[in-house]
Amino acid sequence: MTRAYQTLESRAKRINDIHGALAILSWDAQTMMPKGGSEARGEQVATLSAMAHEIATADDLSDLLDEAEAGASSLDAWQAANLKKMRLAQRRASAIDPALVSSMAKATNRAEMIWREARANADFSMLQSDLDEVIDLTRDKAECLASTFELEPYDALLDTFELGLRRATIDPLFQRLAEGLPDLLERVLAAQVKPLPIVGPFPAAQQKALGKKLMAALGFDFEHGRLDESQHPFCGGLPDDVRITTRYDEAEVTSALMGVLHETGHALYEAGLPKGWRSQPVGSSLGMVVHESQSLLIEMQVCRSRGFLGFLSPHLTETFGPRAAFDADNLYRDAIWVERGFIRVDADEVTYPLHIILRYRLEQALLSGDLALKDMPGAWNDGMQELLGIAPPDDAKGCLQDIHWPGGAIGYFPCYTLGAIAAGQLFEAISKTTPSLDESIARGDFSELISWLRSSIHEKGSKTDMQSLLSDATGQQLTLDPYLAHLERRYAA
Amino acid sequence: MTRAYQTLESRAKRINDIHGALAILSWDAQTMMPKGGSEARGEQVATLSAMAHEIATADDLSDLLDEAEAGASSLDAWQAANLKKMRLAQRRASAIDPALVSSMAKATNRAEMIWREARANADFSMLQSDLDEVIDLTRDKAECLASTFELEPYDALLDTFELGLRRATIDPLFQRLAEGLPDLLERVLAAQVKPLPIVGPFPAAQQKALGKKLMAALGFDFEHGRLDESQHPFCGGLPDDVRITTRYDEAEVTSALMGVLHETGHALYEAGLPKGWRSQPVGSSLGMVVHESQSLLIEMQVCRSRGFLGFLSPHLTETFGPRAAFDADNLYRDAIWVERGFIRVDADEVTYPLHIILRYRLEQALLSGDLALKDMPGAWNDGMQELLGIAPPDDAKGCLQDIHWPGGAIGYFPCYTLGAIAAGQLFEAISKTTPSLDESIARGDFSELISWLRSSIHEKGSKTDMQSLLSDATGQQLTLDPYLAHLERRYAA
Repeated sequence: MTRAYQTLESRAKRINDIHGALAILSWDAQTMMPKGGSEARGEQVATLSAMAHEIATADDLSDLLDEAEAGASSLDAWQAANLKKMRLAQRRASAIDPALVSSMAKATNRAEMIWREARANADFSMLQSDLDEVIDLTRDKAECLASTFELEPYDALLDTFELGLRRATIDPLFQRLAEGLPDLLERVLAAQVKPLPIVGPFPAAQQKALGKKLMAALGFDFEHGRLDESQHPFCGGLPDDVRITTRYDEAEVTSALMGVLHETGHALYEAGLPKGWRSQPVGSSLGMVVHESQSLLIEMQVCRSRGFLGFLSPHLTETFGPRAAFDADNLYRDAIWVERGFIRVDADEVTYPLHIILRYRLEQALLSGDLALKDMPGAWNDGMQELLGIAPPDDAKGCLQDIHWPGGAIGYFPCYTLGAIAAGQLFEAISKTTPSLDESIARGDFSELISWLRSSIHEKGSKTDMQSLLSDATGQQLTLDPYLAHLERRYAA
Repeated sequence: MTRAYQTLESRAKRINDIHGALAILSWDAQTMMPKGGSEARGEQVATLSAMAHEIATADDLSDLLDEAEAGASSLDAWQAANLKKMRLAQRRASAIDPALVSSMAKATNRAEMIWREARANADFSMLQSDLDEVIDLTRDKAECLASTFELEPYDALLDTFELGLRRATIDPLFQRLAEGLPDLLERVLAAQVKPLPIVGPFPAAQQKALGKKLMAALGFDFEHGRLDESQHPFCGGLPDDVRITTRYDEAEVTSALMGVLHETGHALYEAGLPKGWRSQPVGSSLGMVVHESQSLLIEMQVCRSRGFLGFLSPHLTETFGPRAAFDADNLYRDAIWVERGFIRVDADEVTYPLHIILRYRLEQALLSGDLALKDMPGAWNDGMQELLGIAPPDDAKGCLQDIHWPGGAIGYFPCYTLGAIAAGQLFEAISKTTPSLDESIARGDFSELISWLRSSIHEKGSKTDMQSLLSDATGQQLTLDPYLAHLERRYAA
């Protein structure tokens, strides 16, 4: 190992510490911070981000990387992969002007705060000028990255969310889904059996207690993490201190619970990252496709299965008292209930990809400038009509429902559905090597599942890329067939 | 304004942002963080602290200060005061070798850990060698500062807690207290009327709701702050996002409430700092004497007054249901109950200064080397006997009760009592200019009080020093008479 490589590791460690601090500050802003703290917080975040950016773009960094690359033969496989990640980060960072980084931090901070108000008022126009600034800055960023990496601007953004992801990979997958899902949806809607309604009240404190019990059963370690509330559920913090959130509606129980299980999937990935490499780029999680594959594998493949719901049923009875609707078959009918709805995060597995395809189309149009923000509400509603056959009654149920765009995350949405596709592929692979899987899940024993995920996915960190990870774990690159087979089996059998 | 000055301001702003982030991380560590997060958090805090220290000790800083000082005629009064604070910080930082800073951090970290064990075992000898190291290092630090600032070593330490504070100021005040308080104590003990016990249970959620109501009445703005729980109550965060904590004991109500009101005094000070200068040294609060004067003015002068307790009484009834002990006169008898006790933090206004005088004497003897640590338990117990007429049954109730010395804070203790003295002086001054003050307090109207504090204390930031601040606000430098008159009036009338 050369001195240059050692210097790079110690700088990466410093950047990692700053990012860890920022992760806690971001969690705090969404769960704890009083509203009036946001301006000062924005300054702190901008300063810490700028300092991380300065380390990442130090004048001597390129020379250090050259020197470390020249001595790369002395590195082991992890160190070599770490060095590659550092070079990538350096190219990304130096592609973007520090002033743009700091403007972006301030603009997204402000837009996220305004978004909360705008959504509460169901009034997109309140957000328009702040969001416009975020979109403009994101376009600048995309163009900087595009020119450095010789990519189209939208591909350049996709690449930041999942290394190597391109529109060319997504388009054919989304095209098959856009063609096939409306037909599946019709068949499901015609044949599905209505569940008994699962009627509340379900006190938030009891929902939380049950959520924590299920998290623990899945292997979430509360010595290294928390469950809290926020308007938009997320998984934040860092591997040694993973913080997930949900939001409770006392009138019903399954959406918060499934939300908790979804975020638990993300959390298990973070908590399972390679212990010796956590302060280094190679020890971080891969991109959002792989991250979403972990949450959707837990929520959709595992926790909406008939087996899991049989395990859950007595827990519901124990927590809230006996009800006919807690019968396992009824829970399953409820968990796989399909309907045309306005809200992405409430959508079922069959309609969810259609919500994503809408956003995938619109955000490309926003980025290219083909769509002006003032036309967003109309374009949104037209797209909903085309893909799902319904149009939302207001912006809160329409184009204001997601924080992603105010947060500057263009190119993020497709990762959800690609993650669902990858989850289908991974679950099929686990099922093949673990024939007793369904039975274990039905008993509430997730040890084989989690241990497979740990060794095949989590402990790999960023040593490889998404496509190689999937190949190594399943024998194939990202493929739609297992996911489509899963949808047919679960919804149209 | 010179370019050099502008550069200094922008660096100070960056340090302030880092400290703001650290303040939230520290709050989080004490209120929210899961135990397993502490190692990673320690790394983050060390990295952010090191980055702030690097800015504060940059090679070109001294030249920049010289240049800004040479152009000081172009600065307004706030800028000039800001520059003086920056020069002071630079002189302090460069007085102490970085190796000493890091040895001190390690030694106090270790001593604080051992102190917890030693206290649990009531065995001072367990702590002796680690505390010895801390004292030695503190002596080195005091000598470095003493030689830079041409002060006695103990004065050099006092100066770090409250700029300009000297033993020569403290000695005559403490001598009068040591002579007068034992006599007052005898008179109070002979004459006071025992209150009816205020018996619980008092559910924590209701205590919290009442605490928040009183905080709001005093002017605490929940758009810019929070109330949470922690093992040791504190006021943290930053002026735009002030976070205070308390700890609830459901068996009784006044200690958590008075704790909340005490921290509210600190919080109002932070929240009232000059809005335009919050990112700069001159916009920060003054030292520990002034900070304690604000918490003790609210807790002791205002909230333990008969008038305030008359205002509180119906709130207690409304919150917890009617009880004879909630009678206003009984609440007052309870709030001013005096007794000889072993524990400083549980002490009343009459005996508290005696606890401080003991520590003030002992820590000077420790620093000078006149007192060896092996002789501390005996010296402590002798001092308690002399000043309070009682000796603790063990070290946990004696010389092991406070974390200050293991934490390297020698010179801190006197600030508590000096703060109480200043609070008496300030309250007398407010009463003179606001004859209706007692009546307003009894009605729960604190607007005149807070507005006086804002304009006379809070909005001054660090533009001046403690003695000038008191002079400007009250017409006199720190003086004991109003505090003694207050004690006579409240306890011996």
